[in-house]
Amino acid sequence: MTVRTIEWRAGEVILIDQRRLPRKEVYRVCRNYRQVAQAIRTMVVRGAPAIGVAAAMGVALGARRIRHPKSVGSVMERVFRTLEDTRPTAVNLHWALARMRRTYEENKDGGLELLKQRLEDEAMEIYEDDIAANRRLGGLGAGLLKGSRRILTHCNAGALATAGYGTALGVLRAMKESGAAIDEVFVDETRPFLQGSRLTAWELLKEEIPVTLITDSMMGYVMQSRQVDAVVVGADRVAANGDVANKIGTYTVAVLAQRHGVPFYVACPTSTVDLGCPSGADIPIEQRSQDEVTHIAGSRIAPDGVHTLNPAFDVTDHSLVSAIITEKAVVTPPYKKNLRAVCSSTSLRYT
Amino acid sequence: MTVRTIEWRAGEVILIDQRRLPRKEVYRVCRNYRQVAQAIRTMVVRGAPAIGVAAAMGVALGARRIRHPKSVGSVMERVFRTLEDTRPTAVNLHWALARMRRTYEENKDGGLELLKQRLEDEAMEIYEDDIAANRRLGGLGAGLLKGSRRILTHCNAGALATAGYGTALGVLRAMKESGAAIDEVFVDETRPFLQGSRLTAWELLKEEIPVTLITDSMMGYVMQSRQVDAVVVGADRVAANGDVANKIGTYTVAVLAQRHGVPFYVACPTSTVDLGCPSGADIPIEQRSQDEVTHIAGSRIAPDGVHTLNPAFDVTDHSLVSAIITEKAVVTPPYKKNLRAVCSSTSLRYT
Repeated sequence: MTVRTIEWRAGEVILIDQRRLPRKEVYRVCRNYRQVAQAIRTMVVRGAPAIGVAAAMGVALGARRIRHPKSVGSVMERVFRTLEDTRPTAVNLHWALARMRRTYEENKDGGLELLKQRLEDEAMEIYEDDIAANRRLGGLGAGLLKGSRRILTHCNAGALATAGYGTALGVLRAMKESGAAIDEVFVDETRPFLQGSRLTAWELLKEEIPVTLITDSMMGYVMQSRQVDAVVVGADRVAANGDVANKIGTYTVAVLAQRHGVPFYVACPTSTVDLGCPSGADIPIEQRSQDEVTHIAGSRIAPDGVHTLNPAFDVTDHSLVSAIITEKAVVTPPYKKNLRAVCSSTSLRYT
Repeated sequence: MTVRTIEWRAGEVILIDQRRLPRKEVYRVCRNYRQVAQAIRTMVVRGAPAIGVAAAMGVALGARRIRHPKSVGSVMERVFRTLEDTRPTAVNLHWALARMRRTYEENKDGGLELLKQRLEDEAMEIYEDDIAANRRLGGLGAGLLKGSRRILTHCNAGALATAGYGTALGVLRAMKESGAAIDEVFVDETRPFLQGSRLTAWELLKEEIPVTLITDSMMGYVMQSRQVDAVVVGADRVAANGDVANKIGTYTVAVLAQRHGVPFYVACPTSTVDLGCPSGADIPIEQRSQDEVTHIAGSRIAPDGVHTLNPAFDVTDHSLVSAIITEKAVVTPPYKKNLRAVCSSTSLRYT
């Protein structure tokens, strides 16, 4: 794996700064949980599974710096709350923090050093589970997409969005590993943050998968001119009814795919499925700063004083989703029943 | 009118450099037809009606510099061919050059000085006709959009895209002049060239019309969240069956509008209607350079070596178009019959 998104090394969390790619490969070292929270908030690290893993490591880092056993309760509450409040939409963050909190509750009375070790072990397990889940869902997705040689993806659901391997791009990696022919992957640039042009194009070039970069405004053109056999994207949260919150623009891709009879697949681990959330209408959509819309690469591209909207995500109705590829199974409609069945394990872990 | 897109002054064509807006208001002076052709090709001036007017002035400029009567024929052929070959999709260019060629044919044997004067007069008339047509279609559009308080537009179909006043933005200007309340105009930034953020937002701010800038990826979100009452865009060429070629991304807006029951209006003078072109499939779509996709504002935003597509336009099927607002009438389906009727005047001029 040539892309190192996130690493735990001697009590530090090392993150590749995704704001600087593809021009510079800069690694940020987080030495405390506040730095991890800041990195999530400012999108040094992004992608639903990756921010879940980063938050879990942030908890381990928060515990590691506790000196006095009697401050454990108050410090850990602050750590959990700070990390919880970084970004609202991706559910993996909450899922990972819930796992960490359970480990904390189970071990808080066993001594400070043991608690630190258990939290570190749990964060490492979340990290490794994520890579394993991606590999498994990649394999399932590769089977599903067999014969689709021209694929469109939006945003970055790659190694950079996860602990490694990727979800949507994990499917492409698995296709390549299985010897399937991929003629072309269309990558939407994904304004405002440009995850497509900056991150996905970069990852696919590294993997030597053929990539064609387009602007978001060209999605309709490539579908209309019959250049796309299938769409595969990641997800930030899947509601119990199969509605999918994902990077802004995903809904538009799905509408176009339906119009042109192109299957629209969502690839995500079951940690992205939120059975407690009945439908997409219940998913909070993060609104980000105006600067991301009025500027690109540090240059102002809009007149001073212009008002903007900047919703970071949109919701794709489950009626537009052909299948949801998880590490446990490829889930097809009816989603309400089938997602519940697939995610029904009482354990938070999928092993 | 605060925006001066194009002017004829003492045998020079003065163009505002639309590549530099909104940061700098720079005016380029074209002293010969080759400079005009280059300005069209490089998008110093853009927008279907504006490039028609610029090309007509380019012809007048080409004639003006002829010294010897016997070189008239060869020079004028070169002038027409050079200007004809600048951009393929917008039909106004060809329409304006056809008008100029007719004037040339009618006057080529009447002496060089008279020919120069007649060509200059004809170019001025095309310029003034365009402004008059925009004002008239703006008024018709304002009647049609009455009660629509939240409007979305794509690209720039404003004063900057025309001799003045604008087509889609002309409708908004006319609404404002008639006292209609406009609560919000959503402007897609329109990658790759950013006509929305750089030009349309700038024009609307100057007019004190409330503008909300969004990225192209947010079109679906604002429609889905019921924030848009109507869409109005310009056109680069309308085929005889009502199919509309317009800036890349327009087709996607139209598909979303139909899904959400939002009327989708096209505003253009009849000089944009090409009755000789049976359908959208017959409209040539210009492919532009990769740099426009891989760079923004001079900064590289994609990895080196990435392949791109850059179609400058797409075609919106007439079934997605609620009405076409021209200076003669608001045209509704069936377009094949009604466009022919409205454009049936044997004169190329609409008076």
